[in-house]
Formats: sequence, structure tokens, C-alpha cells
Amino acid sequence: MPHPNDPKLRSFIPVDPSSDFPIQNLPYGVFSARGRTPRVGVAIGDYVLDLCELEQDGRFAFAEIGVFSQASLNPFMALGPKMWSKTRARISELLRYDHPELRDDEGLRKLVLVPIGEVKLHMPFAVSGYTDFYSSKEHATNVGVMFRGKDNALQPNWLHMPIGYNGRASTVVVSGTRVKRPRGQLKPPSAEAPHFGPCKRLDFELEMGVVVGQASKMGEMLSEQQAEEMIFGFVILNDWSARDIQQWEYVPLGPFQAKAFATSISPWVVTREALEPFRLHGPAQQPEPLAYLRQAQPNNYAMELDVSLRASQMNAAQTICRTNFKYMYWSSVQQLVHHASSGCAMNVGDLLGSGTISGPEKHQRGSLLEISWNGSEPVTLDGGVTRTFLEDGDSLVMRGWCQGDGYRVGFGEVEGTIVKAE
Amino acid sequence: MPHPNDPKLRSFIPVDPSSDFPIQNLPYGVFSARGRTPRVGVAIGDYVLDLCELEQDGRFAFAEIGVFSQASLNPFMALGPKMWSKTRARISELLRYDHPELRDDEGLRKLVLVPIGEVKLHMPFAVSGYTDFYSSKEHATNVGVMFRGKDNALQPNWLHMPIGYNGRASTVVVSGTRVKRPRGQLKPPSAEAPHFGPCKRLDFELEMGVVVGQASKMGEMLSEQQAEEMIFGFVILNDWSARDIQQWEYVPLGPFQAKAFATSISPWVVTREALEPFRLHGPAQQPEPLAYLRQAQPNNYAMELDVSLRASQMNAAQTICRTNFKYMYWSSVQQLVHHASSGCAMNVGDLLGSGTISGPEKHQRGSLLEISWNGSEPVTLDGGVTRTFLEDGDSLVMRGWCQGDGYRVGFGEVEGTIVKAE
Repeated sequence: MPHPNDPKLRSFIPVDPSSDFPIQNLPYGVFSARGRTPRVGVAIGDYVLDLCELEQDGRFAFAEIGVFSQASLNPFMALGPKMWSKTRARISELLRYDHPELRDDEGLRKLVLVPIGEVKLHMPFAVSGYTDFYSSKEHATNVGVMFRGKDNALQPNWLHMPIGYNGRASTVVVSGTRVKRPRGQLKPPSAEAPHFGPCKRLDFELEMGVVVGQASKMGEMLSEQQAEEMIFGFVILNDWSARDIQQWEYVPLGPFQAKAFATSISPWVVTREALEPFRLHGPAQQPEPLAYLRQAQPNNYAMELDVSLRASQMNAAQTICRTNFKYMYWSSVQQLVHHASSGCAMNVGDLLGSGTISGPEKHQRGSLLEISWNGSEPVTLDGGVTRTFLEDGDSLVMRGWCQGDGYRVGFGEVEGTIVKAE
Repeated sequence: MPHPNDPKLRSFIPVDPSSDFPIQNLPYGVFSARGRTPRVGVAIGDYVLDLCELEQDGRFAFAEIGVFSQASLNPFMALGPKMWSKTRARISELLRYDHPELRDDEGLRKLVLVPIGEVKLHMPFAVSGYTDFYSSKEHATNVGVMFRGKDNALQPNWLHMPIGYNGRASTVVVSGTRVKRPRGQLKPPSAEAPHFGPCKRLDFELEMGVVVGQASKMGEMLSEQQAEEMIFGFVILNDWSARDIQQWEYVPLGPFQAKAFATSISPWVVTREALEPFRLHGPAQQPEPLAYLRQAQPNNYAMELDVSLRASQMNAAQTICRTNFKYMYWSSVQQLVHHASSGCAMNVGDLLGSGTISGPEKHQRGSLLEISWNGSEPVTLDGGVTRTFLEDGDSLVMRGWCQGDGYRVGFGEVEGTIVKAE
């Protein structure tokens, strides 16, 4: 049987070369359609394959477990990496051009293939814990130069470990969820005392999210290989940030309400296995990391990312950032190894944000903080619209894909529109 | 019917005046005994009342729901504050001296009253999110003086809001769970680069934990009253801390692995209602808090707290801290209001640590960092044992109680013993 990543594979379902969802991808999500309860599906071209119906029809060896009738990927993820591979191979087989089982069964096709325009997409998994890292050297440097000057841009610990903090899991939402402008304590440098009101410096952060699919035990560390095998897949993640709330609250315990109001993720979880052909080495790490963080494998991925913004008065969205996941200094595997290094237990459904993904070039900056250089260089958009930070009515879209030869393994998009504080 | 808090109430079960669990308390926990599955119970004197058996026997009006057969308080908490009150009143009635229903039914008594020495206590609820505050002015001042000197002890934001950060929910464990000394990156001031190894400055933090029993919606703020009504109860909490890991990692995003390896809580959740007689005003807040944080009610509690330490070579534990919850500058209600102020959704099962509870006197310091003044003033214990920070084999016990007239509403204890890093 051909490997599901084989670039020559084709599905009996027509898939445009520009589609995010060819047979080499097969990302998992949770959807509802046709009045049925939310369940697990896989995107293929312009369709969603209903795994719940396939499971109930006995098309999977583990059908009795019923993992695909759930409104969350967690029970499926809990089955572990061997079952993830087997299942993906089976789905690939069912969708292959040269496999008649589904292709030639019109009744089954009608039952299990739902046009993607007819489905409502839900949160793909229950977020157990949400952790946000800070692992782009370009981003950390930009922020450091802005706030501390060139000579002290990177904090002394930054090159020694993936710096991160615990975020708020309760407000991780799926693409399309509207984001209410948060209120909070604001203290402009000139003010004597803070006041409470709507955030004035609302920002996005372009990130990837790692979806952890296996648990680790309290008190145990992880090797590179163990961490790798615990990663189920990736989503695009927008770590919405209230810069003015953050500025006043973050000393000495880090961001709290500035990041707690919303974090948006894309609805399709692209599996680690589907990204395998796009692996590459990250930037050289100097000084060499401590032994527990060293990598024997290339753990970065070549993944194109872009961000576009559409103000309410604009006819179309306009790209404001184009960058690549490959620039990340600390890899997702290193983040996970570090996360468990104190003995911290990891759970099925943990979500790890990569940190803002900026690149070396100016057009590769992954936040408005950097794009507008802390508000000092407004960006001009179509029709004379200018922005330093986000305004009410702005819609922000992030997209990501790995480009193969004649196909792309894509993530779809994560969209969020800002609504005004009450 | 007398109110369950009536100090004159007595149970037909004999309860010593020094017991933590008189009929005025009725704290909830999850226990197993006699080979039965874990279920919800209430502590009364030297017994645990099995609510699962009572529920199955039809002794509660909502018996059909089956909330007490779960291994977690979350389903019961989700029923809301009116049902919490009703249930407590019903349990009080069942245990009253002058109510024959259980008192005179020997068969039922044997079924539902389990000697407390025969039970195994479990985590009382599933922790949805764990947030740790920093709300004792004395503690924040002590730490500030140590690290920044007297003139800059309190950070500028501290008097304006309850400073807090998201902690790690996956490693909140119940009293009695052994705590493995964490490993992590350590960089003594004299070293050029960090190394990885066992923490050398392992500490405890004496805290109370608020157990949130009701959810709030994303995008919505809370009033003082709404926040108050969402609080189900309180536990004692030990926020184990690796000071040396923290020192190196915490800039600029706050504590991460330094606090992620373990947080211990007491097994009995004392309800907010049981603490009602012990309410009092906290310290005067100057400057006056912003409007959203102002309090119309006294939201602090007079609650005695002590910490004792027993090194493996000692015959008995020795008290190293005696303090009171009443000193807290920011109340639990203010913490919860602030937590939701950006629109952050709160969930059933959220746990909010108060922050280390220190008092104005030297013997009221709630951490070894303060007791040993950052290691410079070792504490001498019985038999010539000295400590700056915790050593392998040390057992730490925290206890807490509200003293009534002839009875006390107590929390039991939270114990943890340090085991060596592998």
C-alpha cells in the first residue's frame, strides 16, 4: 500500500492543486451538518469526510470504541501514535483513486461526503492546558530593541531555553468567533494612576499551535523522541494581545489579563505525519543548548504563513505579513521537552503556542507591535486606511501551508473580527 | 429549621471541640473505602458521611442526577449556589442530634458512616484552570525588599490590582502525594552559563485556594456579588516553588517550570457558607481601588494558619509559621472579579491560589524564602537541624481553621514529603 504522504497519490475526489486539503493532508476537525450532532471529520478538497458515519458503518478496525462520534478529537488522540498512523492510512485508502470501496458506493459516498460549504466547524479538541512560548529570535529581538534598546534586546536566559508561560485555556476559540475588545487597567506613561477602560492597543500574534495527543507522567522528563511522538498535529494560532494592559500588569509575574480574553485557532488539525515531507533543520543554536534540549533530528518545518487585515471600510483583505515557520529558533519538540523538564505532567489536549513567528525581513513581522514599531510607523492599507493597532470591525485572517510538488498541505485559515467593548 | 451555621447545633455523632469537622462545617471531599469506587463524602467528627449511598437511598431531592457517585465535586458544584445551600441544610438535618432519620436507623448508619481512618482521600475536584495570585502585601514587600531594596519593594502596579498569573493545572495534587524535587536550569550569579540539575532552593508557599463552582461567559465582567456567588469553597494550598529555577527563567514572562512540578491541596473543600460567621474586613486599601474592584462587603476571613516541618531525623513536626488569612490585602472576590475583567471565561473547577499568606510579624512569614531571608538566616529546628530551604525527606504540613465559640471550622491539613530527584 502506498504511503499516505506519497506525492503521486490522487483521490477520486477532484482536488485543485491550490487546495489546502489534498489526499496528502487529511487534517482532522469537528463539524456538524445536516442536523446531526458534532462529530469528527477529515477535510478532502471541497468536502468533509464524516468519520463518525464511516465508523458506525464498521469501516475502521476499532469501530466499537466510537471515538469519532465525539465532539472533540481528544478520545481519538488518546489512542496513541500507532493508531493515528493506521487510521490515516485507512482514510487515505478509502479516498484513493484506485480503491473502489467508497469510490463506487454511491449510497456510502452520499452519506459520508459533505460539501465543506454546508458544515459548521467547531473547536477541534478540548484544550486541557494552554501554554504560550516566545521562541522566534527575530520577534524577541524586535520587542527587546523597542523596549530595552539594541544592546540588551535579548534577555540573558533567552538563548538557553524556550521561554514560555501558562496561558488561559478557557478562552481558546475556533476561527470565526468574534473577539470582543477587552477592557482592563491602562496606565499611559504620562498618567499618575491607572484607569479602567477598553484596550487601545489591541494586537494579534501569528503563531502555530502544537496539539499534544499523549500524556506524560508527573515527575518524568521527556526525550526528544518521546516528545516528538506525543505531538498529534498543528493548528494556526492567533494569540490576541492587549499591549497596553500587558505593559502595566506584566511585572513581575508575566502576562495575565492581556492575553486571557481570546486565543483563536484554525479548525483543522494538520497531523505531524502529514508535515513529515517538509521537515528541515532550524537555525543554528549558539550557544549549544544544554544536553536535555539537544536535537538529533531536524524538528522545524518549511511552512508559508501570511496574515491579512480587512478593515470594515475595505472591499478586500490586504496582506500585512508573509513569513515562514522555519525561522523559529526553538522547535516544538524542544518546547515540549522543556515544558516537562521540571516534572510537569502533560495531558492529551494540551496546546502549545509557538510564540509570534517573525522572520529576518521587515515584511515578515508577525504582530502589529512590530509592523508599526510600537505604534510609531502606521501601516497604510488600501483606500488610505492606516493602522497602528486593531480597530473595531477589523477582520484578521491567518493562513498557512507547506508547498509540495504540485500540491500543498494547508491549514485553512483562522479568522477573527474585533467587536467593540460594551 | 435551624441554620446549619448555628453555633448551638450538635450532631448525634460525638465531635470533640478541637475537631476540624463539627456539624457547623460539613466540608466536601472525594473518598474511597471498603472496596467501593471513589465518591463524594462529607467529614463529620471522626467519620466520613457517604453521600453517594444516601443519594442512592433517595435521601436527596435531586437523587436522580447522581452527582455524588462521581469521583469529583464538579457535577455537584455545577448545580449552583442555591442547591449548595439546600444540600448543606439537608446534610445538617441528617446529622442533627434531634433528627431521628439517620440517628435511629442503625442499618443506614452502618452503610453511610465510615470511620475517617479507613478512607483514602482523593483529589476533591477536577482542576479546570489553576491561577496563582500574589495578594499579601507583607509577602510582596518582603520579597521586594530582598531583591530590590526597601525603596522599591512594591512594584508600581501592586496596589492597583491583584497581580496574578496562570499556573499549571495538571500537577495540582491532593495532600499526601509525594513531591519529587524538580530539576531545571540553574544559574548561580557567579556562573557564566546555566547548568541543568536538581533544584537547590526548594520552597513552600502557604496559600488558600478558592474553588470556583460556577462558570462565567467569555466577554463578560463580574460584579462583587456575582463573583461571591461563584465561589463554592476553600482549600489550603501549598504552592511548591523552585526559587533557583524561578530566578533564572522568570524574566519577562513570569514563573513557568519553577512552579509547574507540583501544587498540593487539602482534601476537604470547606464551603463558603460554612465560613460566613468568620467574615471580616481586610486591611484598608489605599489608594482606593478602581470602581470595578471596590467592595461593599467584608470579603476577608479570620482563619488561623500554621505550617510545620519535620525533617526525616526529627521525632515530631515543629511549627515554623503561624499566621492568619485575614491579613490578605486583595480578597478572593477581588481576585475573581479582576480575573474575569478582560472577558476571561471562568469555569467550574477553576482554582485560585491566594498568594503566599504572610503577616506583619516575623513568625508569620509563609515561605522559607522569607523565613530564612533568602537563605541568609537559617532556621534552627529541634535536635539542631537547620534549614534555609527544603531537603529530601522533609515533610511539610499546613493546617487552617476558623475558631468559633466552643467549636472550630477546620480544613484538616495538606501534607507533602520531598523525595529526591532521580
